[in-house]
Amino acid sequence: MNAEIISVGTELLLGHTINTDATFVARELSAIGIDLLYACTVGDNAARLQSALETALKRSDIVITTGGLGPTDDDLTKETVARSAGVALTLHEASLRQLEDYFGTRPFGEDQRKQAFLPTGCIALQNRLGTAPGCFFRTAQGKIVIMLPGPPFELVPMLQTEALPLLKKESRAVIHSCMIRTFGIGEGTAAQKIASLTDFSNPTVATYAKENEMFVRVTAKAQSEAKAVALCDPVVQQVRTVLGDVVYGIDVASLEEVVVGELLRQKRHLAVAESCTGGLLAKRITDISGASAVFDVGVVTYADAVKTSLLGVPESLLQAHGAVSEPVACAMAQGVRLCAPEYPDEKGSLGLGITGVAGPTGGSAKKPVGLIYIALCDGDNTWVRTMTPRGRVLGRDWLRDRAVGNALDMVRRYLCGLSL
Amino acid sequence: MNAEIISVGTELLLGHTINTDATFVARELSAIGIDLLYACTVGDNAARLQSALETALKRSDIVITTGGLGPTDDDLTKETVARSAGVALTLHEASLRQLEDYFGTRPFGEDQRKQAFLPTGCIALQNRLGTAPGCFFRTAQGKIVIMLPGPPFELVPMLQTEALPLLKKESRAVIHSCMIRTFGIGEGTAAQKIASLTDFSNPTVATYAKENEMFVRVTAKAQSEAKAVALCDPVVQQVRTVLGDVVYGIDVASLEEVVVGELLRQKRHLAVAESCTGGLLAKRITDISGASAVFDVGVVTYADAVKTSLLGVPESLLQAHGAVSEPVACAMAQGVRLCAPEYPDEKGSLGLGITGVAGPTGGSAKKPVGLIYIALCDGDNTWVRTMTPRGRVLGRDWLRDRAVGNALDMVRRYLCGLSL
Repeated sequence: MNAEIISVGTELLLGHTINTDATFVARELSAIGIDLLYACTVGDNAARLQSALETALKRSDIVITTGGLGPTDDDLTKETVARSAGVALTLHEASLRQLEDYFGTRPFGEDQRKQAFLPTGCIALQNRLGTAPGCFFRTAQGKIVIMLPGPPFELVPMLQTEALPLLKKESRAVIHSCMIRTFGIGEGTAAQKIASLTDFSNPTVATYAKENEMFVRVTAKAQSEAKAVALCDPVVQQVRTVLGDVVYGIDVASLEEVVVGELLRQKRHLAVAESCTGGLLAKRITDISGASAVFDVGVVTYADAVKTSLLGVPESLLQAHGAVSEPVACAMAQGVRLCAPEYPDEKGSLGLGITGVAGPTGGSAKKPVGLIYIALCDGDNTWVRTMTPRGRVLGRDWLRDRAVGNALDMVRRYLCGLSL
Repeated sequence: MNAEIISVGTELLLGHTINTDATFVARELSAIGIDLLYACTVGDNAARLQSALETALKRSDIVITTGGLGPTDDDLTKETVARSAGVALTLHEASLRQLEDYFGTRPFGEDQRKQAFLPTGCIALQNRLGTAPGCFFRTAQGKIVIMLPGPPFELVPMLQTEALPLLKKESRAVIHSCMIRTFGIGEGTAAQKIASLTDFSNPTVATYAKENEMFVRVTAKAQSEAKAVALCDPVVQQVRTVLGDVVYGIDVASLEEVVVGELLRQKRHLAVAESCTGGLLAKRITDISGASAVFDVGVVTYADAVKTSLLGVPESLLQAHGAVSEPVACAMAQGVRLCAPEYPDEKGSLGLGITGVAGPTGGSAKKPVGLIYIALCDGDNTWVRTMTPRGRVLGRDWLRDRAVGNALDMVRRYLCGLSL
């Protein structure tokens, strides 16, 4: 079965909103073996939406619209879909009651009430976090039409809990996909290493360059989940073997998830001192729910005086080498490690220190933008990784992200007993 | 003039990559008065790309493709566009030389060389950060075709420095748009307040609900920048007046940009102590280049012991009220303020403390997920804002973002002399 998404919203065509809805719907369709062949975006304009709908209803089995279901005048998806598909809109009593519940004692007018009108005979999709219900129906020609609301926090739960169970019944194939995630290898090098694997048609093997990481996706399609997994697994193992220890995880959410998981498993704590990354490392660690079991303290020491007062970095060291230097990175890692509480029944905490020039200003010939030192200390030894601005330097955010990636990679490699 | 984007890439239809390219191109087109009416996505499939191209070349004056220009077999945009537009591909000598420069002494093969073949007579668009050049040409029917590479860090500079100057010459209208940004008002309330303004057709006035903020966009189209600005300005002022002091800026990048700018202007420093937000506040402040002039220190105190050792929060206070409490938030704000260096020629630093339950675990009946205290201290007084989990609580990331938004809003309101 093949599907098409039509995203409705002038804000998308003006570039004011990134179309994450389409990405989310695409990913979920792929996971249940439905081929998405086209995704189109039109503005809040009935004529162009109608034209897109007519094309889609001709060439696709399933048409999914996002957006334009709300109470305002420019919400015209439902009316236009009904016209294109040749169905009438009638008052859906259960949806009206949900609207009444939503508003409680607050009054609501005709514009809000309009949201409870749905294509006759459709299955209404409940909106748990907003006012506009979605719907699922079949046209006289046997095409499936699904309308979803635009706000992502309304669309995501509606798709997952209401629409996908209905769609799964329609799909006859299963897609199984594995994402092998790496840090520290370029796409070109990786592609060369796995070149012999990328000619397969089932499973397919593809590389994805992310900002500072590189992923390899292996995807198989089969009639059952077990068969698709059996197609994927040996290829995933081959990719993993060929790429080696730059692989930090398979089907994991992030490098920080792996690091926090490994810290938990090994009962070790991590403390971090950041200068140029300004809290991004602490933020990414604490993005992981449950990080409090392994993370006690992060310090953002932007001013030199604070490096001394909070982390005990000697003033003489700062004067001799400057704040952006290998000795200061080491002293920051060592200092912040001692800020963490002691856990007598555990191995000691790890300390991490980052100092560098993230730019765009503040660089010099001797210490250019992009020069960043990252130090890891386990109490006995301290290791340093130096980032130098050779090759591409893609700006402040990119440098900060890359420095944090390197820091997390160092912790992972330390915990896994790999060379630093 | 109207335009259409065709994004090429199976990864987009599998939901593995968010289509930020389309958003970026859309925004830039809008800024130079070109109406984007359609945006379509197709996979790496010649037949479907050709079908999309034929439709686009019929209905749109300008067709912009993104992606599929690279060296691999599934990069087939150029060949397919050439076929659809009826032009031949010939070797572009200057682009070949740039490829040779890029690879330097490294050998490169036929697949890389293929990238230097471009539509005969086109204007080549240089790729400063990658290998595949883009191009700009006019079909026999007078339609403009632009091909851009897929990776955003290649597309963005190519569009800005190479393609837009060519497009500007084609556009006869100018669009001027102002974004009024607010924190602390819901979209519903805002929409009611500005209801009388949203009926205009030029300029248009529209509200945008962001995760924890709300924006109002005013957009005018005219024959000159000056005329468009003259249409916008009075309406922007009306919106600003009606919404009041929840407006934190117009055409600014973020709340943190406003806060850092105001701190700079008033020569005040800010120090932050974070618990549940885990470094996100420090990260957002230091996202702003130049923040080092107003930001010396951030402390992420996840463990209670660290709240005491680094910030001087009394153990007795933690025991009596718990870490998630108003007195502890105040003590954190007061404590971190004293961690900052003193600047004798300035007013004292401000201290900010955040403590709460970001979830999804760790909540209790007395201290549920979503309960967050935010304290601001100026040395003389301490103010607290309490976030309670009434209404929607949309998860850990949302809560952390909302807490940081409230913290920045408190600093802004303090600095602007508004009620806290």
